[in-house]
Amino acid sequence: MQSNFYTIREYPQGTPALEVFERQQQELPELQDGEVRIRNNWLSVDPYMRGRMSGVTTYIEPFTLGAPLEGAAVGEVIESRDTRFQPGDKVSHMGGWRDVAQLSGDAVTTLPDIAVPEQAYLGVLGMPGMTAWTGLNTIAEMRDGDNVLVSAASGAVGSLAVQLAKARGGTVVGLAGSQAKRDWLESQGIKAVDYRNRTAEELTEALQAACPDGFDIYYENVGGVCLEAALNCLRVGARIAVCGMISRYNDTEPAAGPANLAMILIRRARMQGFIVFEHWDQYPRFIAEIGPRVAAGEISYTETVREGLDATPQAFLELFEGANQGKMLVRLDSA
Amino acid sequence: MQSNFYTIREYPQGTPALEVFERQQQELPELQDGEVRIRNNWLSVDPYMRGRMSGVTTYIEPFTLGAPLEGAAVGEVIESRDTRFQPGDKVSHMGGWRDVAQLSGDAVTTLPDIAVPEQAYLGVLGMPGMTAWTGLNTIAEMRDGDNVLVSAASGAVGSLAVQLAKARGGTVVGLAGSQAKRDWLESQGIKAVDYRNRTAEELTEALQAACPDGFDIYYENVGGVCLEAALNCLRVGARIAVCGMISRYNDTEPAAGPANLAMILIRRARMQGFIVFEHWDQYPRFIAEIGPRVAAGEISYTETVREGLDATPQAFLELFEGANQGKMLVRLDSA
Repeated sequence: MQSNFYTIREYPQGTPALEVFERQQQELPELQDGEVRIRNNWLSVDPYMRGRMSGVTTYIEPFTLGAPLEGAAVGEVIESRDTRFQPGDKVSHMGGWRDVAQLSGDAVTTLPDIAVPEQAYLGVLGMPGMTAWTGLNTIAEMRDGDNVLVSAASGAVGSLAVQLAKARGGTVVGLAGSQAKRDWLESQGIKAVDYRNRTAEELTEALQAACPDGFDIYYENVGGVCLEAALNCLRVGARIAVCGMISRYNDTEPAAGPANLAMILIRRARMQGFIVFEHWDQYPRFIAEIGPRVAAGEISYTETVREGLDATPQAFLELFEGANQGKMLVRLDSA
Repeated sequence: MQSNFYTIREYPQGTPALEVFERQQQELPELQDGEVRIRNNWLSVDPYMRGRMSGVTTYIEPFTLGAPLEGAAVGEVIESRDTRFQPGDKVSHMGGWRDVAQLSGDAVTTLPDIAVPEQAYLGVLGMPGMTAWTGLNTIAEMRDGDNVLVSAASGAVGSLAVQLAKARGGTVVGLAGSQAKRDWLESQGIKAVDYRNRTAEELTEALQAACPDGFDIYYENVGGVCLEAALNCLRVGARIAVCGMISRYNDTEPAAGPANLAMILIRRARMQGFIVFEHWDQYPRFIAEIGPRVAAGEISYTETVREGLDATPQAFLELFEGANQGKMLVRLDSA
């Protein structure tokens, strides 16, 4: 059986060109004991993947040039030599960027039995949702009534973060760069603030207007001017959960950091980085808490969907232009 | 009775000129019920005082122009209308920058009964020592075997921090800007690294050579190039305790922050600011633990002493030139 997949020809500098990505085809070897073959229905593209294209190990190994790229995917088992899986089972796994994946059963997870569309396990109930939940609860130790600022607030992570924060009763402000995104935020009862084409001083004023008492929590996805303005608006004892700095991922030169980092001292604040994969033991708790609320429609989520395997590289690159609202997904023909 | 004191004529911009400080004299009013009159023997000058000269409230109120400046001092009660104090009692209080202080008894503390020189309560057993202990234990949650990097490592705070860290068994590296300071550090079994006239890259290499495994804790007093190099040398899960950023206190323009702040994410590190006064409820624990070790000579401390009230402004300004080794003190004629 053939598998069509994407790889990269080289480790790109700066913003990757579309030509860096190459579609290839391979004949899958015969299925071995313990292996599972899966026809993917949905592929995930996520900003963190840029780090794996750098050729250096940061907190995760780089992709191997010429080999299939990896990423979250959901699909249906079509052949199994692992007794835990039967053809027809819906599963999630990391064998994305391809139409057919062949993996050890140990690397495959049966989807939970919750009445949600299967692609929800790539977004609100997958790694991005788990990232929002972990950042707010485990890292930032969110309490009832906390005022919370979320950057990239209409993205896959941020759109759940704002809803989880709102449910705790404080003022929630979301940073977003387009009117459509801000409209969605306002529809959720979130105060939306535009960060584009604003200096740190201007953004600081806008945040002070939106939340004069300042923020107990800043959920940081972005870096740059958003971080600098957020630092100016912290309450005493604030917590900053750092799960990404997307504004920096394509930088070729280090950019200067925030000039007001001393606010960490002045506000006795705490800034902590985290990688969601290191907290994955908490995933069952997350699903138990959030899954039923998604199924009941209490938590809303949006998707930006691109069609077909060939759309995957472009979908990935669009993340860095902020083209997605909610989770960026690729739907394959089989879905 | 006359009290001689220093005040400031204006809130200085940048590095204060000596002329900003003005010596004045006042006739003390008659002692009221509940008040204590103290002849100061030793005055403390500390970097945090610069923040109170800025005219804006950061984490502490600004000094009042024309009124006596405040700061830690130790002295002897010469008259008391508070039954808790008798003439001859040795006390500590915040009525420094003057020779005779008259204060409410509620603002005065009798020195503990430990066999140490009285001025130790301005340094190793006072606010600076408590700052070192709180930063390492409460904020950075130091564990046995942690590798610890300390900036301003021969200063009042750093010189205790390196010894507390060394006692936990890991590699301890201290940053210091003069050969004499580094000699003192080496005499304590601390690896000493020079940070002066080095770029962040050069300092990073020097730190990697001193401690190839990286640091579990960075005790941050300085900001600037030291912070940037330290961020490059963190181990996964590192903690940064921020108790000051002395390199910034005289800045008139915000300076760019570290270009590598994303290391917080890559190393899943935590950076937390703290103000020791907010942890003062732990002072009895600190004294019980550290006091006997100082009295027994197990913890060494050094002092840089200037003589006489008139030396106080210059002693304060010298802090920003790194002129002190250990605690900078002013000894008054009565001591």
